[in-house]
Amino acid sequence: MDFLDVVFTRRSIRKFNSQKVSDENIETILKAAMSAPSAHNEQPWEFLVITERVVLDQISKIHPYAQMCLQSPLVIVPCIDLSNEYKDFWVQDMSAATQNILLCARALNLGAVWVGVYPNEHIINDIKRLFKLPEEIIPFNIIPIGYTDVPQKAVERYNLDKIHKNKW
Amino acid sequence: MDFLDVVFTRRSIRKFNSQKVSDENIETILKAAMSAPSAHNEQPWEFLVITERVVLDQISKIHPYAQMCLQSPLVIVPCIDLSNEYKDFWVQDMSAATQNILLCARALNLGAVWVGVYPNEHIINDIKRLFKLPEEIIPFNIIPIGYTDVPQKAVERYNLDKIHKNKW
Repeated sequence: MDFLDVVFTRRSIRKFNSQKVSDENIETILKAAMSAPSAHNEQPWEFLVITERVVLDQISKIHPYAQMCLQSPLVIVPCIDLSNEYKDFWVQDMSAATQNILLCARALNLGAVWVGVYPNEHIINDIKRLFKLPEEIIPFNIIPIGYTDVPQKAVERYNLDKIHKNKW
Repeated sequence: MDFLDVVFTRRSIRKFNSQKVSDENIETILKAAMSAPSAHNEQPWEFLVITERVVLDQISKIHPYAQMCLQSPLVIVPCIDLSNEYKDFWVQDMSAATQNILLCARALNLGAVWVGVYPNEHIINDIKRLFKLPEEIIPFNIIPIGYTDVPQKAVERYNLDKIHKNKW
């Protein structure tokens, strides 16, 4: 799919049908995630990849905005390994990887949505408990992914007022 | 350009030739930036778009890693407007917009690089002074953009050790 079509038609998708996501597509999405830039190329990310129904249902109970995990056949939870250096930039690194995941899902004709977790300590700790994550591993967000019957069309967000040429 | 080719061949480009970036391409890049997701769709971003040589040269003096602004015909400085709500998520919102800029540049056969600014207070304040930014506007990073003679080829960053299926 053409890049500009992907970037302009990516929407937050919260409704999914029952079609499974293939292992090949999951691998492509994870490759896209790991192709993101990171400060000093540290690549500080880890990825929980959830496809088992019982685990998906457990995630839906942890986060008030993650009910769609009851439907989605796939959830990715990008995590940071805090034992890496360049801690000033880890949120930026994880966000770049997340954006690659969302766009790649769209390119594969899937839908996805970025459900924020960090910096909500309560939800972070619930996810850490569910997956028995090591002390230094922090879940960053929850990304339900799946096929959808919702049309993914472009919306106009371009706003000339936000552009400042050569001066404020 | 196909999405997967874009995402897998995007590299940090720090050398630029003298070819200018067209106004049409600048508009496409800014449209891509503003197509990013943001918490509660707040779209908290503003964009400084620099094409005047004297201003580009001034930016190069502010940041030790921004020397390439002496060469690049275009620099975008995404900024956050802190008067928006959802402050917990502004770094994530700005990073998603930044990643869209980097990928869109690649799709247009341009090169670009993410030069980190936030949370370095010293550099933030120098940029605020240079552009006389309002109190609530914070520069997030510096993105030099231009045509390059450096080949943009895929590098393998895929690492199976970072994938955890259904459990840690």
